[in-house]
Amino acid sequence: MAWDFLNFVAVAAFAFSGAIVAMSERYDIFGVIILGIATPFAGGIARNLFLQQDVVHIWEQGIFLYVAVGTIMIVYFFPKRWVMFWNRWNVYLDAFGLSAFAIQGALFAMNKDLPFGAVLFSAIITGVGGGVTRDVLAQRRPMVLHTEIYAVWALVAGAIIAYGIIDYSNPIQLYILFVAIITLRLLSFHMNWHLRFRDLYRI
Amino acid sequence: MAWDFLNFVAVAAFAFSGAIVAMSERYDIFGVIILGIATPFAGGIARNLFLQQDVVHIWEQGIFLYVAVGTIMIVYFFPKRWVMFWNRWNVYLDAFGLSAFAIQGALFAMNKDLPFGAVLFSAIITGVGGGVTRDVLAQRRPMVLHTEIYAVWALVAGAIIAYGIIDYSNPIQLYILFVAIITLRLLSFHMNWHLRFRDLYRI
Amino acid sequence: MAWDFLNFVAVAAFAFSGAIVAMSERYDIFGVIILGIATPFAGGIARNLFLQQDVVHIWEQGIFLYVAVGTIMIVYFFPKRWVMFWNRWNVYLDAFGLSAFAIQGALFAMNKDLPFGAVLFSAIITGVGGGVTRDVLAQRRPMVLHTEIYAVWALVAGAIIAYGIIDYSNPIQLYILFVAIITLRLLSFHMNWHLRFRDLYRI
Repeated sequence: MAWDFLNFVAVAAFAFSGAIVAMSERYDIFGVIILGIATPFAGGIARNLFLQQDVVHIWEQGIFLYVAVGTIMIVYFFPKRWVMFWNRWNVYLDAFGLSAFAIQGALFAMNKDLPFGAVLFSAIITGVGGGVTRDVLAQRRPMVLHTEIYAVWALVAGAIIAYGIIDYSNPIQLYILFVAIITLRLLSFHMNWHLRFRDLYRI
Repeated sequence: MAWDFLNFVAVAAFAFSGAIVAMSERYDIFGVIILGIATPFAGGIARNLFLQQDVVHIWEQGIFLYVAVGTIMIVYFFPKRWVMFWNRWNVYLDAFGLSAFAIQGALFAMNKDLPFGAVLFSAIITGVGGGVTRDVLAQRRPMVLHTEIYAVWALVAGAIIAYGIIDYSNPIQLYILFVAIITLRLLSFHMNWHLRFRDLYRI
Repeated sequence: MAWDFLNFVAVAAFAFSGAIVAMSERYDIFGVIILGIATPFAGGIARNLFLQQDVVHIWEQGIFLYVAVGTIMIVYFFPKRWVMFWNRWNVYLDAFGLSAFAIQGALFAMNKDLPFGAVLFSAIITGVGGGVTRDVLAQRRPMVLHTEIYAVWALVAGAIIAYGIIDYSNPIQLYILFVAIITLRLLSFHMNWHLRFRDLYRI
C-alpha cells in the first residue's frame, strides 16, 4: 500500500521526465505522449520480456496509465518558464524514478522467488530501462553511460534487498532505502563521483 | 482473400524499399538481402514478441518470403537509372507498406480478441516497425521521427478498426481505409503537415 | 565434451574483446564488467528470445560466467602495453568468438530439430549478436556493417551444418569447420574482401 503510493509518484516522475525531454528536443505532441508513456513503463516491459514473465502491457497498467497521461498533459500545458528548468529537474526526476523502479524491480524478482542474479538484473533493468528508452528515443546519449555513477545504485538497491539487509515487507525500511538511493545518485551527480580508476589511454 | 493480395503487394513494397535503401547506402549484396527481408517482416515479429504471441519466423513466411526475395532480386538487377529515383519512390513505397501493415496489425489484434489498447499498439508497431528497422540498419534517422505526420496514421487506422467504424470483414471497406491512409500519409509529406503546436524553446 | 572446451575459449575470447573495447572507450569498471559479460552472452540470449526458446540467463551460465568474470579481471589488471595492442587483438578475438558461436548456434537449432531457415538464422544471430551488442554499447559502428565479409561466414557455418556437409556429432569435423571459419574471416579482413559487386551510385 505504502509502496503503491511511491509507485504512483515514480510513474509521474518518469512521465514528467520523458515529456520534458521530448519537449526540449522539440518533438511534436505525438512524440511527447510516446516518450511520456514509454519512460515509466519501458523498464518493466523490458524486464518481463527478458525474464520471460507475463508482460504487463501499457493498456493493462490501469490507474498508472492515467497518472502518466495526466502528468504529460500537465507538462504540456505548464507555464513555459517552469519547463525551462528542465535540465536540472530532469536529473532529480530521473533519480527519483531510478530509485523507485530499481526497488520495484528487485521486489518483483523476490516475489517470484527468482535467484540472486535475477534480483540484481531485475533491479538494474527496471531502474535503468526507462531512462535509457527515453534517451534513445530522444537521440541523446543515455544517462547511464555518463560518467557519474548511475546504474550501480540500482545494483546496490537490488543487492540490499536480495541479501535481506533490509526487511522488504516493512514499508519504513523500503522508504529509507528509497531515499538513500536517491541521495546517493544525486551525490554522485553533484560531487561528480566516478568509478574509473584505471585510465589506460591517457596520452 | 482480397486482403491477402494486398499483403503480397505490401511485402513487395517494403522489400523494394529496404533493398533500395540498402543499395543507396552502398551496402553489399548481403546487406541488400538482409534489409530487403527485414523491412517487410520486422514489424510483425516485433509485434508478436511484445504481445507474447507465437512469432511467425522469417522461414515460416512461405510465399511471402519468396515475394520478398524475388523483389530484392529484381531491384538488384534493375536498370540503374530506375533505381536512381529511389528517394521519391521510397516515400511512396513506405506509405504503401505503412498503410497495409498498420491495417494488418489492427486486424491481427482484433482476431485475437485483444483489448482496445492492444489494437492501437499492434497497428502502430506493425505499421512502423519495418520502416524503423530499415532506417536503423541503414543508419538513417527513422522516418517516424521526421517532422511530417507518420505514426499517427497507423494509430488512426487502428482506432478506426478498433472502434468498428468500418466493418473489417468487408474487403471493400478495408481497401477504402487502405487508400485513405496512404493518401493521408502522402498528403502529410507533400503538404509538410506537422503536429507541433507548442514550441517551448523558440529563441 | 571437446566442444565444451571450445565454448570456454569462445566465452573467454568474447569477454576479453568486450572488456578491451570498453577500456579503450575509457569506460569505468562497471562498464568494463557489463561489456565483458554482455559480449559472450548477448548472442545466445537474443537467439533464444527470437526463437521463443527458454532463455539461459546470465546467472544460469554457471561455469561460463566465472570464465567471463575471470577474463575481465585479467584484462583489467593486464600490463598496459599488452592491452595497447587491443585493435589488432580485437579482430582476432572477434573472429574466434564469431566462429565458435556461429557453430554453437547452428548446433543449438539442429538439436531442437528446427527447420533449415532457423538453423541459418540461429547461426547468424548467435555468431554476430555478441559483437553487435559490444559495439552498440561502446557506441561504435558494428563490425558486421563494416566492409569486409563478416556475417556471411556465420551463415556459411550454419549452412554447412544444416545441409549435413559435416557430421556435427564428430568433434574433429567441428574443429576443422571452426578453424576454417576463423581463417575465412581473417582472410576477409587481411585481404580486404568485399561482397559488393554492383555500385549504383558511383559518381
